[in-house]
Amino acid sequence: RIVAACRRSLAPQDYRELFVLVTAGGTREPLDPVRYIGNYSSGKMGYALAQAAWERGARVTLISASSLPPPSEVEMVRVETAEEMWNAVVKNFDKADVVLKAAAVADFRPASRSAQKIKKGDNHKLILELEPTVDILASLGRRKERQILVGFAAETEELLANARQKLEDKRLDLIVANDVTRPGAGFGSDTNICTLLFPDGRKEELPRLTKLEAAHRILDAVKTLPHFPGRE
Amino acid sequence: RIVAACRRSLAPQDYRELFVLVTAGGTREPLDPVRYIGNYSSGKMGYALAQAAWERGARVTLISASSLPPPSEVEMVRVETAEEMWNAVVKNFDKADVVLKAAAVADFRPASRSAQKIKKGDNHKLILELEPTVDILASLGRRKERQILVGFAAETEELLANARQKLEDKRLDLIVANDVTRPGAGFGSDTNICTLLFPDGRKEELPRLTKLEAAHRILDAVKTLPHFPGRE
Repeated sequence: RIVAACRRSLAPQDYRELFVLVTAGGTREPLDPVRYIGNYSSGKMGYALAQAAWERGARVTLISASSLPPPSEVEMVRVETAEEMWNAVVKNFDKADVVLKAAAVADFRPASRSAQKIKKGDNHKLILELEPTVDILASLGRRKERQILVGFAAETEELLANARQKLEDKRLDLIVANDVTRPGAGFGSDTNICTLLFPDGRKEELPRLTKLEAAHRILDAVKTLPHFPGRE
Repeated sequence: RIVAACRRSLAPQDYRELFVLVTAGGTREPLDPVRYIGNYSSGKMGYALAQAAWERGARVTLISASSLPPPSEVEMVRVETAEEMWNAVVKNFDKADVVLKAAAVADFRPASRSAQKIKKGDNHKLILELEPTVDILASLGRRKERQILVGFAAETEELLANARQKLEDKRLDLIVANDVTRPGAGFGSDTNICTLLFPDGRKEELPRLTKLEAAHRILDAVKTLPHFPGRE
Protein backbone atom coordinates (compact mmCIF):
# COMPACT_ATOMS: atom_id res chain seq x y z
CA ARG A 1 0.00 0.00 0.00
CA ILE A 2 2.83 2.41 0.84
CA VAL A 3 4.74 1.29 -2.24
CA ALA A 4 1.61 1.85 -4.32
CA ALA A 5 1.18 5.38 -2.94
CA CYS A 6 4.84 6.18 -3.68
CA ARG A 7 4.52 4.86 -7.21
CA ARG A 8 1.43 6.99 -7.73
CA SER A 9 3.12 10.13 -6.45
CA LEU A 10 5.97 9.59 -8.94
CA ALA A 11 3.87 8.52 -11.95
CA PRO A 12 2.72 10.92 -14.65
CA GLN A 13 -0.91 11.87 -13.89
CA ASP A 14 -1.91 11.53 -17.54
CA TYR A 15 -5.08 9.55 -16.70
CA ARG A 16 -6.30 12.00 -14.10
CA GLU A 17 -10.09 12.46 -14.02
CA LEU A 18 -10.56 9.58 -16.43
CA PHE A 19 -12.80 6.68 -15.49
CA VAL A 20 -11.10 3.41 -16.41
CA LEU A 21 -13.03 0.16 -16.35
CA VAL A 22 -10.93 -3.02 -16.18
CA THR A 23 -12.04 -6.65 -16.30
CA ALA A 24 -9.81 -9.42 -14.99
CA GLY A 25 -9.66 -13.13 -14.31
CA GLY A 26 -11.38 -16.09 -15.86
CA THR A 27 -15.11 -16.66 -15.58
CA ARG A 28 -16.49 -19.96 -14.29
CA GLU A 29 -19.62 -21.54 -15.73
CA PRO A 30 -21.25 -24.01 -13.32
CA LEU A 31 -22.28 -27.48 -14.46
CA ASP A 32 -23.80 -28.32 -11.09
CA PRO A 33 -23.21 -27.13 -7.49
CA VAL A 34 -19.79 -28.82 -7.47
CA ARG A 35 -18.29 -28.51 -10.96
CA TYR A 36 -17.65 -25.76 -13.48
CA ILE A 37 -15.97 -25.02 -16.78
CA GLY A 38 -13.18 -22.53 -16.18
CA ASN A 39 -10.06 -21.19 -17.84
CA TYR A 40 -6.47 -20.68 -16.79
CA SER A 41 -6.53 -16.88 -16.61
CA SER A 42 -5.13 -15.83 -13.24
CA GLY A 43 -6.32 -12.21 -13.31
CA LYS A 44 -2.78 -10.85 -12.89
CA MET A 45 -2.74 -8.87 -16.16
CA GLY A 46 -6.06 -7.17 -15.36
CA TYR A 47 -4.98 -6.39 -11.81
CA ALA A 48 -1.75 -4.87 -13.16
CA LEU A 49 -3.77 -2.68 -15.56
CA ALA A 50 -6.01 -1.51 -12.71
CA GLN A 51 -2.95 -0.73 -10.62
CA ALA A 52 -1.19 1.11 -13.46
CA ALA A 53 -4.25 3.23 -14.32
CA TRP A 54 -4.70 4.11 -10.65
CA GLU A 55 -1.03 5.12 -10.35
CA ARG A 56 -1.57 7.48 -13.29
CA GLY A 57 -4.48 9.23 -11.64
CA ALA A 58 -7.51 7.41 -13.05
CA ARG A 59 -10.58 6.45 -11.13
CA VAL A 60 -10.67 2.68 -11.60
CA THR A 61 -13.37 0.06 -11.32
CA LEU A 62 -12.08 -3.49 -11.55
CA ILE A 63 -14.58 -6.21 -12.40
CA SER A 64 -12.89 -9.39 -11.31
CA ALA A 65 -13.56 -13.06 -11.89
CA SER A 66 -10.28 -13.84 -10.14
CA SER A 67 -9.79 -14.98 -6.55
CA LEU A 68 -6.78 -12.68 -6.08
CA PRO A 69 -7.15 -10.09 -3.31
CA PRO A 70 -8.07 -6.62 -4.63
CA PRO A 71 -5.23 -4.21 -5.44
CA SER A 72 -5.03 -1.19 -3.13
CA GLU A 73 -7.30 1.79 -3.65
CA VAL A 74 -9.25 0.29 -6.52
CA GLU A 75 -13.00 -0.31 -6.41
CA MET A 76 -13.59 -3.98 -7.14
CA VAL A 77 -16.71 -5.92 -8.13
CA ARG A 78 -16.45 -9.71 -7.96
CA VAL A 79 -18.26 -11.83 -10.52
CA GLU A 80 -18.24 -15.49 -11.39
CA THR A 81 -19.94 -16.20 -14.72
CA ALA A 82 -19.89 -14.54 -18.14
CA GLU A 83 -23.43 -13.33 -17.51
CA GLU A 84 -22.48 -11.68 -14.21
CA MET A 85 -19.48 -10.12 -15.94
CA TRP A 86 -21.75 -8.76 -18.67
CA ASN A 87 -24.17 -7.24 -16.15
CA ALA A 88 -21.37 -5.58 -14.18
CA VAL A 89 -19.69 -4.21 -17.31
CA VAL A 90 -22.90 -2.78 -18.77
CA LYS A 91 -23.68 -1.04 -15.49
CA ASN A 92 -20.35 0.81 -15.64
CA PHE A 93 -19.90 1.25 -19.38
CA ASP A 94 -21.68 4.55 -19.98
CA LYS A 95 -19.52 6.48 -17.55
CA ALA A 96 -16.26 4.86 -18.68
CA ASP A 97 -13.62 6.68 -20.70
CA VAL A 98 -11.35 3.70 -21.25
CA VAL A 99 -12.38 0.03 -21.06
CA LEU A 100 -9.64 -2.60 -20.71
CA LYS A 101 -11.16 -6.06 -21.20
CA ALA A 102 -8.37 -8.28 -19.88
CA ALA A 103 -10.67 -10.98 -18.49
CA ALA A 104 -10.89 -14.34 -20.18
CA VAL A 105 -14.64 -14.74 -20.48
CA ALA A 106 -16.14 -18.14 -21.24
CA ASP A 107 -17.34 -18.44 -24.85
CA PHE A 108 -19.53 -21.39 -23.92
CA ARG A 109 -21.50 -22.50 -20.92
CA PRO A 110 -23.48 -25.63 -20.11
CA ALA A 111 -26.88 -25.37 -21.82
CA SER A 112 -28.47 -26.54 -18.59
CA ARG A 113 -27.22 -26.41 -15.04
CA SER A 114 -28.02 -29.29 -12.71
CA ALA A 115 -29.40 -28.22 -9.34
CA GLN A 116 -27.85 -31.30 -7.71
CA LYS A 117 -24.45 -32.90 -8.02
CA ILE A 118 -24.33 -35.10 -11.12
CA LYS A 119 -23.59 -38.67 -9.98
CA LYS A 120 -21.18 -40.91 -11.79
CA GLY A 121 -23.55 -43.79 -12.48
CA ASP A 122 -22.39 -46.89 -14.30
CA ASN A 123 -19.21 -45.86 -16.01
CA HIS A 124 -21.02 -44.42 -18.99
CA LYS A 125 -19.94 -41.51 -21.05
CA LEU A 126 -21.61 -38.22 -20.37
CA ILE A 127 -22.67 -35.82 -23.09
CA LEU A 128 -22.53 -32.16 -22.23
CA GLU A 129 -24.28 -29.62 -24.37
CA LEU A 130 -22.70 -26.17 -24.37
CA GLU A 131 -24.28 -22.96 -25.62
CA PRO A 132 -22.56 -19.69 -26.53
CA THR A 133 -22.44 -16.95 -23.90
CA VAL A 134 -23.04 -13.29 -24.69
CA ASP A 135 -20.10 -11.81 -26.63
CA ILE A 136 -19.32 -8.92 -24.29
CA LEU A 137 -16.61 -7.35 -26.40
CA ALA A 138 -18.65 -7.37 -29.62
CA SER A 139 -21.67 -5.96 -27.77
CA LEU A 140 -19.59 -3.14 -26.31
CA GLY A 141 -18.06 -2.49 -29.73
CA ARG A 142 -21.55 -1.93 -31.16
CA ARG A 143 -22.65 0.17 -28.21
CA LYS A 144 -19.62 2.39 -27.72
CA GLU A 145 -19.69 6.12 -28.32
CA ARG A 146 -16.70 8.03 -26.98
CA GLN A 147 -15.25 5.05 -25.04
CA ILE A 148 -11.86 3.65 -25.92
CA LEU A 149 -12.27 -0.11 -26.03
CA VAL A 150 -9.21 -2.32 -25.60
CA GLY A 151 -9.46 -6.07 -26.13
CA PHE A 152 -7.10 -8.93 -25.40
CA ALA A 153 -6.43 -12.01 -27.53
CA ALA A 154 -4.88 -15.03 -25.86
CA GLU A 155 -4.22 -17.46 -28.65
CA THR A 156 -2.31 -20.66 -29.23
CA GLU A 157 -1.90 -20.42 -33.02
CA GLU A 158 -2.04 -17.81 -35.78
CA LEU A 159 -1.84 -15.18 -33.07
CA LEU A 160 -1.65 -12.00 -35.12
CA ALA A 161 -4.18 -13.04 -37.75
CA ASN A 162 -6.70 -14.04 -35.08
CA ALA A 163 -6.06 -10.87 -33.09
CA ARG A 164 -6.37 -8.59 -36.15
CA GLN A 165 -9.66 -10.29 -37.03
CA LYS A 166 -10.96 -9.76 -33.50
CA LEU A 167 -9.90 -6.09 -33.57
CA GLU A 168 -11.95 -5.52 -36.72
CA ASP A 169 -14.96 -7.73 -35.98
CA LYS A 170 -15.50 -6.22 -32.55
CA ARG A 171 -14.70 -2.60 -33.46
CA LEU A 172 -11.90 -2.31 -30.92
CA ASP A 173 -9.55 0.67 -30.62
CA LEU A 174 -6.61 -1.52 -29.66
CA ILE A 175 -5.95 -5.20 -29.16
CA VAL A 176 -3.28 -6.78 -26.99
CA ALA A 177 -2.24 -10.13 -28.45
CA ASN A 178 -0.28 -12.74 -26.60
CA ASP A 179 0.63 -16.30 -27.38
CA VAL A 180 -0.10 -18.13 -24.15
CA THR A 181 2.08 -21.06 -25.19
CA ARG A 182 5.30 -18.97 -25.06
CA PRO A 183 7.38 -19.27 -21.88
CA GLY A 184 7.04 -16.08 -19.83
CA ALA A 185 3.74 -15.16 -21.48
CA GLY A 186 1.33 -17.76 -20.20
CA PHE A 187 -1.48 -17.84 -17.68
CA GLY A 188 -0.49 -17.26 -14.09
CA SER A 189 2.93 -15.96 -15.12
CA ASP A 190 4.20 -12.71 -13.60
CA THR A 191 5.50 -11.61 -16.99
CA ASN A 192 3.94 -11.21 -20.40
CA ILE A 193 5.05 -10.83 -24.02
CA CYS A 194 2.50 -8.74 -25.91
CA THR A 195 2.01 -7.40 -29.39
CA LEU A 196 -0.24 -4.34 -29.73
CA LEU A 197 -2.32 -4.00 -32.88
CA PHE A 198 -3.99 -0.70 -33.84
CA PRO A 199 -6.93 -0.10 -36.22
CA ASP A 200 -4.69 1.98 -38.54
CA GLY A 201 -2.48 -1.04 -39.16
CA ARG A 202 0.27 -0.11 -36.71
CA LYS A 203 1.87 -2.92 -34.76
CA GLU A 204 4.01 -2.61 -31.65
CA GLU A 205 5.88 -5.60 -30.24
CA LEU A 206 6.70 -5.40 -26.56
CA PRO A 207 9.57 -7.40 -25.05
CA ARG A 208 9.09 -9.74 -22.10
CA LEU A 209 7.98 -7.44 -19.28
CA THR A 210 6.47 -7.78 -15.84
CA LYS A 211 2.71 -7.50 -16.08
CA LEU A 212 2.82 -4.08 -14.37
CA GLU A 213 5.40 -2.82 -16.89
CA ALA A 214 3.32 -4.23 -19.75
CA ALA A 215 0.25 -2.52 -18.28
CA HIS A 216 2.00 0.86 -18.36
CA ARG A 217 3.07 0.29 -21.96
CA ILE A 218 -0.54 -0.52 -22.88
CA LEU A 219 -1.68 2.71 -21.21
CA ASP A 220 1.03 4.56 -23.16
CA ALA A 221 -0.36 3.05 -26.36
CA VAL A 222 -3.93 4.07 -25.48
CA LYS A 223 -2.66 7.67 -25.17
CA THR A 224 -1.57 7.63 -28.82
CA LEU A 225 -5.11 6.95 -30.03
CA PRO A 226 -6.69 9.93 -31.82
CA HIS A 227 -9.70 10.23 -29.52
CA PHE A 228 -7.86 9.75 -26.21
CA PRO A 229 -9.72 12.10 -23.86
CA GLY A 230 -7.00 12.72 -21.24
CA ARG A 231 -5.36 16.06 -20.58
CA GLU A 232 -1.72 16.31 -19.68
CA ARG B 1 5.90 -21.52 11.01
CA ILE B 2 6.67 -20.68 14.64
CA VAL B 3 3.01 -21.14 15.55
CA ALA B 4 3.07 -24.51 13.78
CA ALA B 5 6.17 -25.61 15.71
CA CYS B 6 4.56 -24.54 19.00
CA ARG B 7 1.38 -26.40 18.18
CA ARG B 8 3.42 -29.49 17.37
CA SER B 9 5.35 -29.34 20.61
CA LEU B 10 2.07 -29.20 22.55
CA ALA B 11 0.12 -31.81 20.54
CA PRO B 12 -0.07 -35.47 21.53
CA GLN B 13 2.46 -37.39 19.43
CA ASP B 14 0.00 -40.21 18.76
CA TYR B 15 0.84 -40.33 15.02
CA ARG B 16 4.58 -40.51 15.56
CA GLU B 17 6.44 -42.71 13.04
CA LEU B 18 3.31 -43.10 10.97
CA PHE B 19 3.34 -42.20 7.31
CA VAL B 20 0.20 -40.24 6.44
CA LEU B 21 -0.72 -39.58 2.84
CA VAL B 22 -3.17 -36.71 2.25
CA THR B 23 -4.77 -35.54 -1.00
CA ALA B 24 -6.20 -32.05 -1.31
CA GLY B 25 -7.79 -29.62 -3.73
CA GLY B 26 -9.81 -30.08 -6.87
CA THR B 27 -8.39 -31.59 -10.04
CA ARG B 28 -8.67 -29.81 -13.36
CA GLU B 29 -9.30 -31.65 -16.62
CA PRO B 30 -8.20 -29.65 -19.68
CA LEU B 31 -10.51 -29.21 -22.67
CA ASP B 32 -7.85 -27.35 -24.63
CA PRO B 33 -4.79 -25.22 -23.69
CA VAL B 34 -7.08 -22.50 -22.30
CA ARG B 35 -10.11 -24.19 -20.71
CA TYR B 36 -10.74 -26.94 -18.17
CA ILE B 37 -13.44 -28.62 -16.16
CA GLY B 38 -12.82 -27.98 -12.48
CA ASN B 39 -14.58 -28.09 -9.16
CA TYR B 40 -14.98 -25.72 -6.25
CA SER B 41 -12.79 -27.58 -3.76
CA SER B 42 -10.30 -25.09 -2.30
CA GLY B 43 -7.91 -27.62 -0.76
CA LYS B 44 -8.30 -26.14 2.75
CA MET B 45 -9.66 -29.33 4.36
CA GLY B 46 -6.80 -31.44 2.97
CA TYR B 47 -4.20 -28.87 4.03
CA ALA B 48 -5.70 -28.82 7.52
CA LEU B 49 -5.45 -32.63 7.70
CA ALA B 50 -1.81 -32.51 6.59
CA GLN B 51 -1.09 -29.86 9.21
CA ALA B 52 -2.91 -31.77 11.98
CA ALA B 53 -1.15 -35.05 11.20
CA TRP B 54 2.22 -33.30 11.17
CA GLU B 55 1.47 -31.64 14.53
CA ARG B 56 0.80 -35.10 15.95
CA GLY B 57 4.15 -36.43 14.83
CA ALA B 58 3.36 -38.07 11.49
CA ARG B 59 5.53 -37.96 8.41
CA VAL B 60 3.17 -36.40 5.89
CA THR B 61 3.07 -36.32 2.11
CA LEU B 62 0.46 -33.98 0.70
CA ILE B 63 -0.62 -34.51 -2.89
CA SER B 64 -2.23 -31.25 -3.87
CA ALA B 65 -4.35 -30.13 -6.78
CA SER B 66 -4.84 -26.79 -5.02
CA SER B 67 -3.02 -23.55 -5.72
CA LEU B 68 -2.67 -22.78 -2.00
CA PRO B 69 0.92 -22.42 -0.76
CA PRO B 70 2.22 -25.56 1.00
CA PRO B 71 1.76 -25.83 4.76
CA SER B 72 4.99 -25.70 6.74
CA GLU B 73 7.15 -28.79 7.12
CA VAL B 74 5.04 -31.00 4.91
CA GLU B 75 6.32 -32.64 1.73
CA MET B 76 4.04 -31.59 -1.10
CA VAL B 77 3.54 -32.93 -4.62
CA ARG B 78 1.52 -30.74 -6.98
CA VAL B 79 -0.77 -32.37 -9.53
CA GLU B 80 -3.41 -31.07 -11.89
CA THR B 81 -5.53 -33.86 -13.36
CA ALA B 82 -7.19 -36.97 -11.92
CA GLU B 83 -4.62 -39.07 -13.79
CA GLU B 84 -1.69 -37.19 -12.24
CA MET B 85 -3.34 -37.51 -8.85
CA TRP B 86 -3.68 -41.27 -9.39
CA ASN B 87 -0.02 -41.64 -10.37
CA ALA B 88 1.19 -39.68 -7.35
CA VAL B 89 -1.06 -41.57 -4.94
CA VAL B 90 -0.06 -45.01 -6.24
CA LYS B 91 3.62 -44.11 -5.91
CA ASN B 92 3.15 -43.36 -2.21
CA PHE B 93 0.45 -45.86 -1.28
CA ASP B 94 2.52 -48.90 -0.33
CA LYS B 95 4.47 -47.09 2.36
CA ALA B 96 1.41 -45.28 3.77
CA ASP B 97 -0.16 -46.16 7.11
CA VAL B 98 -3.11 -43.78 6.84
CA VAL B 99 -4.51 -42.33 3.62
CA LEU B 100 -6.81 -39.29 3.85
CA LYS B 101 -8.40 -38.67 0.45
CA ALA B 102 -9.77 -35.14 0.92
CA ALA B 103 -9.27 -34.07 -2.70
CA ALA B 104 -12.26 -33.63 -4.98
CA VAL B 105 -11.15 -35.64 -7.98
CA ALA B 106 -12.95 -35.21 -11.30
CA ASP B 107 -15.27 -38.12 -12.09
CA PHE B 108 -15.31 -37.16 -15.76
CA ARG B 109 -12.89 -35.64 -18.20
CA PRO B 110 -13.19 -34.58 -21.84
CA ALA B 111 -12.93 -37.69 -24.03
CA SER B 112 -10.53 -35.79 -26.26
CA ARG B 113 -8.35 -32.81 -25.53
CA SER B 114 -7.86 -30.22 -28.25
CA ALA B 115 -4.21 -29.26 -28.84
CA GLN B 116 -5.31 -25.75 -29.88
CA LYS B 117 -7.79 -23.31 -28.42
CA ILE B 118 -11.32 -24.19 -29.56
CA LYS B 119 -12.67 -21.20 -31.48
CA LYS B 120 -16.20 -19.97 -31.06
CA GLY B 121 -17.30 -20.21 -34.69
CA ASP B 122 -20.80 -19.23 -35.73
CA ASN B 123 -22.82 -19.24 -32.57
CA HIS B 124 -23.50 -22.93 -32.72
CA LYS B 125 -23.89 -25.21 -29.80
CA LEU B 126 -20.94 -27.34 -28.88
CA ILE B 127 -21.22 -30.95 -27.82
CA LEU B 128 -18.68 -32.15 -25.34
CA GLU B 129 -18.16 -35.83 -24.73
CA LEU B 130 -16.95 -36.75 -21.26
CA GLU B 131 -15.49 -40.06 -20.16
CA PRO B 132 -15.08 -41.41 -16.64
CA THR B 133 -11.71 -40.98 -14.94
CA VAL B 134 -10.04 -43.68 -12.87
CA ASP B 135 -11.86 -44.18 -9.56
CA ILE B 136 -8.89 -43.65 -7.24
CA LEU B 137 -10.70 -44.43 -4.02
CA ALA B 138 -12.26 -47.67 -5.28
CA SER B 139 -8.90 -48.77 -6.70
CA LEU B 140 -7.15 -48.12 -3.39
CA GLY B 141 -9.94 -49.94 -1.56
CA ARG B 142 -9.27 -53.04 -3.64
CA ARG B 143 -5.51 -52.70 -3.30
CA LYS B 144 -5.19 -51.91 0.40
CA GLU B 145 -3.57 -54.25 2.89
CA ARG B 146 -2.78 -52.70 6.26
CA GLN B 147 -3.57 -49.11 5.17
CA ILE B 148 -6.36 -47.17 6.81
CA LEU B 149 -8.31 -45.56 4.01
CA VAL B 150 -10.43 -42.48 4.75
CA GLY B 151 -12.73 -41.05 2.09
CA PHE B 152 -14.72 -37.85 1.86
CA ALA B 153 -18.19 -37.35 0.48
CA ALA B 154 -19.25 -33.85 -0.54
CA GLU B 155 -22.89 -34.13 -1.44
CA THR B 156 -25.83 -31.85 -2.12
CA GLU B 157 -28.66 -34.29 -1.37
CA GLU B 158 -29.20 -37.56 0.49
CA LEU B 159 -25.88 -36.97 2.18
CA LEU B 160 -25.74 -39.88 4.61
CA ALA B 161 -27.20 -42.48 2.26
CA ASN B 162 -24.76 -41.51 -0.49
CA ALA B 163 -21.85 -41.46 1.94
CA ARG B 164 -22.74 -44.85 3.49
CA GLN B 165 -22.95 -46.33 -0.01
CA LYS B 166 -19.54 -44.93 -0.90
CA LEU B 167 -18.04 -46.28 2.35
CA GLU B 168 -19.21 -49.79 1.48
CA ASP B 169 -18.63 -49.78 -2.28
CA LYS B 170 -15.07 -48.54 -1.95
CA ARG B 171 -14.11 -50.56 1.14
CA LEU B 172 -13.23 -47.51 3.21
CA ASP B 173 -12.37 -47.56 6.91
CA LEU B 174 -14.04 -44.22 7.54
CA ILE B 175 -15.92 -41.66 5.52
CA VAL B 176 -16.28 -37.97 6.26
CA ALA B 177 -19.58 -36.68 4.89
CA ASN B 178 -20.42 -33.05 4.46
CA ASP B 179 -23.31 -31.27 2.82
CA VAL B 180 -21.62 -28.55 0.79
CA THR B 181 -24.85 -26.58 0.51
CA ARG B 182 -24.96 -25.83 4.26
CA PRO B 183 -23.63 -22.44 5.36
CA GLY B 184 -20.26 -22.88 7.08
CA ALA B 185 -19.63 -26.21 5.37
CA GLY B 186 -19.11 -25.32 1.75
CA PHE B 187 -16.15 -25.08 -0.59
CA GLY B 188 -13.59 -22.42 0.23
CA SER B 189 -15.05 -21.95 3.73
CA ASP B 190 -12.70 -21.94 6.73
CA THR B 191 -15.13 -24.08 8.68
CA ASN B 192 -16.78 -27.42 8.09
CA ILE B 193 -19.68 -29.44 9.44
CA CYS B 194 -18.92 -33.16 9.11
CA THR B 195 -20.52 -36.44 9.92
CA LEU B 196 -18.21 -39.42 10.34
CA LEU B 197 -19.50 -42.84 9.29
CA PHE B 198 -17.74 -46.05 10.35
CA PRO B 199 -17.98 -49.54 8.78
CA ASP B 200 -19.47 -50.95 12.01
CA GLY B 201 -22.46 -48.62 11.67
CA ARG B 202 -21.27 -46.00 14.12
CA LYS B 203 -22.02 -42.40 13.27
CA GLU B 204 -20.43 -39.31 14.81
CA GLU B 205 -21.77 -35.85 14.07
CA LEU B 206 -19.30 -33.03 14.50
CA PRO B 207 -20.43 -29.47 15.17
CA ARG B 208 -19.34 -26.55 13.02
CA LEU B 209 -15.56 -26.41 13.50
CA THR B 210 -12.59 -24.73 11.88
CA LYS B 211 -11.08 -27.06 9.32
CA LEU B 212 -8.02 -27.59 11.54
CA GLU B 213 -10.26 -28.54 14.49
CA ALA B 214 -12.27 -30.86 12.24
CA ALA B 215 -9.01 -32.39 10.99
CA HIS B 216 -7.96 -33.23 14.56
CA ARG B 217 -11.37 -34.79 15.26
CA ILE B 218 -10.99 -36.93 12.13
CA LEU B 219 -7.55 -38.07 13.32
CA ASP B 220 -9.12 -38.86 16.72
CA ALA B 221 -11.71 -41.00 14.93
CA VAL B 222 -9.04 -42.84 12.92
CA LYS B 223 -7.39 -43.79 16.23
CA THR B 224 -10.55 -45.63 17.31
CA LEU B 225 -10.37 -47.99 14.33
CA PRO B 226 -9.42 -51.56 15.31
CA HIS B 227 -6.33 -51.77 13.10
CA PHE B 228 -4.89 -48.32 13.88
CA PRO B 229 -1.13 -48.93 13.90
CA GLY B 230 -0.02 -46.04 16.12
CA ARG B 231 1.62 -46.41 19.48
CA GLU B 232 0.91 -43.98 22.29
